[in-house]
Amino acid sequence: MVRAIRGSLFFFLDDPGSDNDPVDSYQYYEDGILVLTVDGHIADVGSTTDMQSKYNLAIRDIIDHSGKLIVPGFIDTHTHYPQSEIIAAYGHQLIQWLDKYAFPAEAKFADKNYACSISRFFLAELLRNGTTTALIFGSVQKVSVEALFEEAEKLNMRIIGGKIMMDRNAPQCLLDTPETAYSDSKALIETWHNKRGRIRYAITPRFAATSSSEQLQAAQRLYHACDDVYLQTHVSENQHEIAWIKQLFPSSKSYLNVYNDFGLVGPRSVFAHGIHLTDDEFRLLADKNAAIAFCPTSNLFLGSGLFNFDQACLTSVRLTLGTDIGAGTSFSMLKTMAEAYKVVQLQSNSSSASERKAAKKIPLTPFKAFYMATLGAARALYLEDKIGTLQPGKEGDFIVLNLDATPLLSFRIKKTLSLADRLFALMMLADDRAIDAVYLMGKRWQNSNV
Amino acid sequence: MVRAIRGSLFFFLDDPGSDNDPVDSYQYYEDGILVLTVDGHIADVGSTTDMQSKYNLAIRDIIDHSGKLIVPGFIDTHTHYPQSEIIAAYGHQLIQWLDKYAFPAEAKFADKNYACSISRFFLAELLRNGTTTALIFGSVQKVSVEALFEEAEKLNMRIIGGKIMMDRNAPQCLLDTPETAYSDSKALIETWHNKRGRIRYAITPRFAATSSSEQLQAAQRLYHACDDVYLQTHVSENQHEIAWIKQLFPSSKSYLNVYNDFGLVGPRSVFAHGIHLTDDEFRLLADKNAAIAFCPTSNLFLGSGLFNFDQACLTSVRLTLGTDIGAGTSFSMLKTMAEAYKVVQLQSNSSSASERKAAKKIPLTPFKAFYMATLGAARALYLEDKIGTLQPGKEGDFIVLNLDATPLLSFRIKKTLSLADRLFALMMLADDRAIDAVYLMGKRWQNSNV
Repeated sequence: MVRAIRGSLFFFLDDPGSDNDPVDSYQYYEDGILVLTVDGHIADVGSTTDMQSKYNLAIRDIIDHSGKLIVPGFIDTHTHYPQSEIIAAYGHQLIQWLDKYAFPAEAKFADKNYACSISRFFLAELLRNGTTTALIFGSVQKVSVEALFEEAEKLNMRIIGGKIMMDRNAPQCLLDTPETAYSDSKALIETWHNKRGRIRYAITPRFAATSSSEQLQAAQRLYHACDDVYLQTHVSENQHEIAWIKQLFPSSKSYLNVYNDFGLVGPRSVFAHGIHLTDDEFRLLADKNAAIAFCPTSNLFLGSGLFNFDQACLTSVRLTLGTDIGAGTSFSMLKTMAEAYKVVQLQSNSSSASERKAAKKIPLTPFKAFYMATLGAARALYLEDKIGTLQPGKEGDFIVLNLDATPLLSFRIKKTLSLADRLFALMMLADDRAIDAVYLMGKRWQNSNV
Repeated sequence: MVRAIRGSLFFFLDDPGSDNDPVDSYQYYEDGILVLTVDGHIADVGSTTDMQSKYNLAIRDIIDHSGKLIVPGFIDTHTHYPQSEIIAAYGHQLIQWLDKYAFPAEAKFADKNYACSISRFFLAELLRNGTTTALIFGSVQKVSVEALFEEAEKLNMRIIGGKIMMDRNAPQCLLDTPETAYSDSKALIETWHNKRGRIRYAITPRFAATSSSEQLQAAQRLYHACDDVYLQTHVSENQHEIAWIKQLFPSSKSYLNVYNDFGLVGPRSVFAHGIHLTDDEFRLLADKNAAIAFCPTSNLFLGSGLFNFDQACLTSVRLTLGTDIGAGTSFSMLKTMAEAYKVVQLQSNSSSASERKAAKKIPLTPFKAFYMATLGAARALYLEDKIGTLQPGKEGDFIVLNLDATPLLSFRIKKTLSLADRLFALMMLADDRAIDAVYLMGKRWQNSNV
């Protein structure tokens, strides 16, 4: 028996750039069918007419989402699951926010039961919001990542995560050492990375301020010794942070160069924020095939600043979107796209004459935004052979979007004339209510938390 | 028979300023009762124990919203109902956005049936989002405002609106003249203002670029001739707009001074945006008892800039919040508060050293945000004798907030320890789903559009 999913299908084949109608970069079937293999991969995709004649599909073979939009599951490239409970914590910027909210919250994750319960909540929120893959920070405790991976394995989610490495400038109860950071990370890699479920590991020094040189060297050894392993950290989020890093690593040429000096900038490394990167730093990231996670809701919430989307595009750096829970304010990649648009808009109209001259010009089109949340992220994570599109051979991770999810969205969608306008209305107006169904490896996810 | 509403009650008595716990400025009953008069005014308010013993209330007299938070209905001080259908229209800043989207949309409002149907949608969206009073732009056509007022009257909503005055720099089909603008506005005032329902009128020159001096003089005559009439317009939203106004009115000292030169800055005048106002202009608004409608979702969406909240507080100008539909991206005053917070946060951490020196310091507390959306707006509109709080004598316009409306909100609220934290979680995370019930003049609104 063939299994098939029917609906409007939309996915990318390539980067749409900044074109308003980049027809060669995507595939759209107004009425299409996805054919799945028994093990949940995508076997074929095409128009309903073509697929029905090719596979002689019976009605009972087809799960019908007609009138809805099926897209690849969203990919969130930066988020902290132990910070779920401090979303929307009032009144501070980065460094104070870490001290007052993030560290106390993360201290609870020494308790595995607690870590499992928050993991379940967090992963359900990802899925409720249409996110099927995420690159996730645990806390410093190894057990926090075991809990996360165990829960992700039960759901068969493609998850990348890692335990924080942090051996200084944080509360004593949250510190590891270069040695334990190395051995705990290595043990997690050996147990989980490409071994169980669809889990991969990311080496996770929190940021240069909380890792000694010895610890960054330990991270370097792991990053270079293990196949396909990721590296995730933060860079250039906040001016005070940047000044602090300069004091801590006076011999490094720049913040990003601290990581580069330890060999941590390369393929499968993902740097969150990068708001205040110099042009040289953007070029270094691009040259090294590293990626940036642009986290607009967090950047606005903490008042960190406006990401330089223009420069990121000009240097062709691998650019993705992250929610950055808990400094980010939403689990939704749609909301994240909406705020990314606003950040880009803000920079095209500056107040002073000199700023206007330097005003950014490359727009964030709806196509580019959806690309960054799907195929663009898959490419940045070197996973485009597995996720991010709906082409044959890929894993069956996709979501069904209901364009009538709210009165306002439905009203607005009815006024749109083009796919571009519909995508834009979705990213600006839709939220978790628009996520009608979520499929992981071809199987529909049922929210057991409801 | 006494009618009473039970729940947690929260409302302001005064401006909370920037205090984190401004206990003297608000009233909070964890378990309270609102007693209503037969005609829907608030007769009394207090703790459930006190109210039950005072009024000898029977269970059948009480509508029970226990466990939920009852607050005054939100007040949106700037929005355009004919732009409902162009929310989330892609890719332009103010002037181009007007030409490409707003003017074509508004041209449809010569048709009264169409205007009535959009009015019904728009007012239902306001109410679904907990907004019980709004200051609303119609289109240039008189009939657009008749439609709006007729629909608002049916709902018994306290609405202020006006027909746009616009006699130049717009498509021919949308132009009036100084004479017709005057006579149409006057006729609407005579029919509606303080005459029918809870309707008041606002003289509505779109902005100085689309009104000739003769038309601004006509606006001035009406503003000064009619009791309690409002004036609503736009000021200093966008740098290109400001430069254009300078060309059009070379003898005026500033953009705001164009309006002031025509006697249009005074009590019950509300200026939308004011992003780029000078200190002198802020002081002029404060001295004249005029108000500003800060519209953060619109300011970010159009990339217009970051409102100077700091300066607004320092000059004690009457400061309110507006959604600015359709350049704004949400009907929700909660979402509007959330984006206002982000705008304020962004300005406390600037990237250059000189900007850091000038960095803004006054935070937007959750108390201040809720104040601006309730009593603060009522005061700015000179309606504090009628709406904006839950004190005896006021009209029974209030809403019931469900703190468990979504899994994330519920999860977050359970982690909060203070009223401030709960209010902040609501403004950052809640949306229309949190609006559990809406009361207009003591009667529960039923959404007939569902």
